[in-house]
Amino acid sequence: MNLTGKSPVINSLLDTDFYKFTMAQLIFRRYGGIRVEFNLIDRSHAPLARFIDEGELRGELDHIRTLCFNNTDLHYLRGTNEYGERMFGEDFLDFLKNLELPSYTLARKGESYDLSFEGPWPAVTLWEIPALAVINELYFRRHIKELSRFERDAVCARGIDRLKHKIKTFREYPGISFSDFGSRRRFSRVWHYYLVGILAEELPENQFRGTSNVKLAMDHGLMPMGTSGHELLMAAAASGLERAEKGAGDFEILVKAQDDILREWYKLYGEGLSIALTDTFGSDFFFRTATGWVAEKWKGLRQDSGDPFDYGEKAMKWYLSHGIDPKNKLIVFSDQLNVELAVKLHLSFRSRIGHTFGIGTNLTNDLGFKPISIVVKALKADGRSTVKLSDNPAKSMGNSGEIERYKKAVGYNITESVECVS
Amino acid sequence: MNLTGKSPVINSLLDTDFYKFTMAQLIFRRYGGIRVEFNLIDRSHAPLARFIDEGELRGELDHIRTLCFNNTDLHYLRGTNEYGERMFGEDFLDFLKNLELPSYTLARKGESYDLSFEGPWPAVTLWEIPALAVINELYFRRHIKELSRFERDAVCARGIDRLKHKIKTFREYPGISFSDFGSRRRFSRVWHYYLVGILAEELPENQFRGTSNVKLAMDHGLMPMGTSGHELLMAAAASGLERAEKGAGDFEILVKAQDDILREWYKLYGEGLSIALTDTFGSDFFFRTATGWVAEKWKGLRQDSGDPFDYGEKAMKWYLSHGIDPKNKLIVFSDQLNVELAVKLHLSFRSRIGHTFGIGTNLTNDLGFKPISIVVKALKADGRSTVKLSDNPAKSMGNSGEIERYKKAVGYNITESVECVS
Repeated sequence: MNLTGKSPVINSLLDTDFYKFTMAQLIFRRYGGIRVEFNLIDRSHAPLARFIDEGELRGELDHIRTLCFNNTDLHYLRGTNEYGERMFGEDFLDFLKNLELPSYTLARKGESYDLSFEGPWPAVTLWEIPALAVINELYFRRHIKELSRFERDAVCARGIDRLKHKIKTFREYPGISFSDFGSRRRFSRVWHYYLVGILAEELPENQFRGTSNVKLAMDHGLMPMGTSGHELLMAAAASGLERAEKGAGDFEILVKAQDDILREWYKLYGEGLSIALTDTFGSDFFFRTATGWVAEKWKGLRQDSGDPFDYGEKAMKWYLSHGIDPKNKLIVFSDQLNVELAVKLHLSFRSRIGHTFGIGTNLTNDLGFKPISIVVKALKADGRSTVKLSDNPAKSMGNSGEIERYKKAVGYNITESVECVS
Repeated sequence: MNLTGKSPVINSLLDTDFYKFTMAQLIFRRYGGIRVEFNLIDRSHAPLARFIDEGELRGELDHIRTLCFNNTDLHYLRGTNEYGERMFGEDFLDFLKNLELPSYTLARKGESYDLSFEGPWPAVTLWEIPALAVINELYFRRHIKELSRFERDAVCARGIDRLKHKIKTFREYPGISFSDFGSRRRFSRVWHYYLVGILAEELPENQFRGTSNVKLAMDHGLMPMGTSGHELLMAAAASGLERAEKGAGDFEILVKAQDDILREWYKLYGEGLSIALTDTFGSDFFFRTATGWVAEKWKGLRQDSGDPFDYGEKAMKWYLSHGIDPKNKLIVFSDQLNVELAVKLHLSFRSRIGHTFGIGTNLTNDLGFKPISIVVKALKADGRSTVKLSDNPAKSMGNSGEIERYKKAVGYNITESVECVS
């Protein structure tokens, strides 16, 4: 296997995560007028510019801008009904059909890059995954280039061997179900394609549930998986603060933003996609302010930062406080998982609360190289800095004044950071 | 290019013509209870059994029976809206999802094969194209096998050279539009894939309109093309005669069957797919009996046998007799076309009546070998022999007594046969 394949890295606008489309449709319909700025953030401080040639990176990003959604891509999206009858509307599909990805700004800054995307939110949001996949693939391609032919074979062998052990573990715990969430931090497209195909062949459908990558779901006939991301509440809250009347309380504005997003999402996708992401302003805020209808109607919650064991206990308590049996609800764990952690969580929560796992980097980038922890995030909405607090201060983002303001508003009190390795 | 590729020939149940799905949906909804028998008919009397190994043929047919419609296939079909908003319903998609193709009966008979498919009409109908594609590919694969490496290269070169001339001709007549209708008689899957990709790259979209092959439409992002086939009226008429009360006139029964099919089709697919196939019982019968609403509402007609120039004149006369300007209507010519004939028809009818071309064998099987003229047709419906008269007696089918009965009923008077070369 030629592990890193050839340029271009991205050949299809479906080579992205499913949740970008569900979010983009909601944004397109309800928040189409908001202008945003998305930025590359490297939480691992890797010397990206030492490994990635600027010209090559520009070439890849320029190539992505030449891509369009073709007839077949639109058939696939229009035909999506895994989460509810024909969930993408013609208005949104027309928007995709005519989409041109906005331009990017790239500048070398020391050993790293400043990379940002500015423009209307429904379009800019679609940059996230391809941009991350390109940076990852170019970065690791450079690592591979320096190896001898046999050393490359050995990398591939190591990846396969580790995958074999993961599959063995999953077979030992048939009660564990999981999905591939690793598009954004994959070693390479070729490896990702291989890996997802193998998981589908080796594990039963009720264990390997599918992949967040739409192109791979299409290529392998799998279920496209996804929940929703932080950007919705981050941008909606920033926009709410921007337009708030004088004297309005920050807490009330944030609660209202959260409430709006939950309601709009549920209105659009119903029960099928009703997994609430809780940690944008700290999950304690969510558990304190999300009203009973969320506990009752929504299928479950996504845990994306902080201690997952503590989180599970809090979630169960929250459900019980609303008179709901946690066994009928679901937690989607998705924070820096590996298979061992998934097993521990499964053993801890089985027969107590439903649970499934979205595994990213540990599936798609576990060939022996240290992964990089990069994200592309909506840092500004309508000119105003957005904020994400998360349940892990190392994952918080925004300008420091705004972060303090949000912390104060929601009563955020977590101090212990956990390093982001992926 | 390895012209004939490897076994299996058919790897996807979408590797068939689009009209099989539109017809199958109508059959499934309205005629699901009818049992049919489809048979292979070799109009060219080629020594199939001399060229095609029985075991290999069984292997290919058995393999087709192992195929299912996967998630991605269903997304594609569900997402089809080129002819009208989401034209395939969940009931029909569920039927496809659970489909198992009925078994086949194969027996060697002299130098040919008897091949038949029996069972419920909605399922049996889906055998037509893959069965034909398999027989063609095995037949020509054998021809290729006997050649030296260089002779194979020369076959490929000839195919490309002929294609080059066709493309040149189409460029000289930018008013000609056409589609690939050649799945059933293609030289090979590999060649078909190549050819459709090249046409899409070399000619503008308003000239090469798309392909009848759903898998190729999907693979190349093209428009899936199709009208409807003879089997609808053949089986509906046979079933009508079977259930007719004593004393009912044959003519009235055939008119009613035609009327039912036209109405059901239009109800299901509306204007988008309203191209009437006129020659099942001779086009003269159609022009005499199809009522004004067909002339008025339907986009046009498909010409599939007899003299196409005469046909065009008759069609224009028919439209004028209903007070309709033929310039606003369309003829889809699809009978044994080659590019030269398409040019002549275009020159004869331009600025008189709209026209487009569905070109089959001459596109997909023009590499220097004599094509074979095989079809798979519904010869029985509910135990009764069906009949097709067509505008070319060489294309008529059914048992001779029934053929005479239909001829008498509709007043069929064509005597001149034209050899079927493709």
